[in-house]
Amino acid sequence: MGRPSLIDSTEGIEKRLAILDAAASVFMNLGFSAASLDDISDAYGATKGIIYYYYRNKSALFFAVQRRAMELTREAIEPHALAGGSPAARLRGMAHDHTLLMMEHLAYLRVAAQGLELHLTGRTTASERAELEDILKLRAANEALYMRVIEEGVQSGDFRPMDPKLLVKPLLGALNWTSRWYHPRKNETAKDRERVADELAGFAVSALLPHPQ
Amino acid sequence: MGRPSLIDSTEGIEKRLAILDAAASVFMNLGFSAASLDDISDAYGATKGIIYYYYRNKSALFFAVQRRAMELTREAIEPHALAGGSPAARLRGMAHDHTLLMMEHLAYLRVAAQGLELHLTGRTTASERAELEDILKLRAANEALYMRVIEEGVQSGDFRPMDPKLLVKPLLGALNWTSRWYHPRKNETAKDRERVADELAGFAVSALLPHPQ
Repeated sequence: MGRPSLIDSTEGIEKRLAILDAAASVFMNLGFSAASLDDISDAYGATKGIIYYYYRNKSALFFAVQRRAMELTREAIEPHALAGGSPAARLRGMAHDHTLLMMEHLAYLRVAAQGLELHLTGRTTASERAELEDILKLRAANEALYMRVIEEGVQSGDFRPMDPKLLVKPLLGALNWTSRWYHPRKNETAKDRERVADELAGFAVSALLPHPQ
Repeated sequence: MGRPSLIDSTEGIEKRLAILDAAASVFMNLGFSAASLDDISDAYGATKGIIYYYYRNKSALFFAVQRRAMELTREAIEPHALAGGSPAARLRGMAHDHTLLMMEHLAYLRVAAQGLELHLTGRTTASERAELEDILKLRAANEALYMRVIEEGVQSGDFRPMDPKLLVKPLLGALNWTSRWYHPRKNETAKDRERVADELAGFAVSALLPHPQ
């Protein structure tokens, strides 16, 4: 049977994540085309050999960063989506933790935005398109978690009557836009990020609530 | 004094706009790096000579498209921002016409998003950065129109107490995201687009209103 490969060991997983952190930050700063594996191995602080042990090439790293961004997003929102509680309380939890995630893993989410942009322009090879389609499915699954809570809220009357399939788009736009405008400030604290997450969660919930007029 | 140059004549302005339409659509479909002046002159249906008469090179076209996107946005929102009426009614008008604009001039707004992405990655020359900074100023001026209405609404009590400088971000995200998800459908009518614009405007206003809880 042989010994388990380094790739599957705890040490291997930790190394993979550290490589992805380095790759995310390089792609964020340089963009996919300009970034090189040398930049990434420099940022990681090791030779290219160790990176090639885990990842076939630059494209594989680019997609792995995007995949991880979608997984991190799911981990942030799914527990709230599936929890008990009112649709408004669950949506608030999702939007809050989603926003916090974007601020704390900015590089991953910004690279995910780059990937979406690349997909929209369509200048990709067939195998890249297959990878991008796969990531779009993860993105769609996260969107479905939001849609599910919106639909429940519309049915229960907690939210205004609306078309959930349409309204989920500006809702995600409001949250995803964070990766465009947010830049960590000098001396920023966890409390500062908490305040941003609270305000954005309030915005998201308020957008769906009924209101007297 | 000589005769007025073609560039400033009505015919010249119309030609410029038609060239920009072609450029916007080519950049949207191929992205800045992959697009060539040949692609743009093919889409415009003329030789490169006429394009060079108006625009120095591909970069100049790319920035002209983005500048026009910001101008179109201002033209859509400014009349509402400066009109009389309640802050909520004015914000509704801004968000409605802004959304409609994005659907009707999708290529321009998507190229503006590409430019923002390029700016974020920073892989630009000094003269490109100067152009991008200029376009960012136009973008900021549009944002200031929204902020002004939000501030008035908060002061008058029409909107919830909030930090307008922060809340304008998810508001713009909710609207700007349209250029990511929207694709004109087959047999789509002006009425279909009107419905989308109404729903998004409702979302934007509702997000800021006070609500019982």
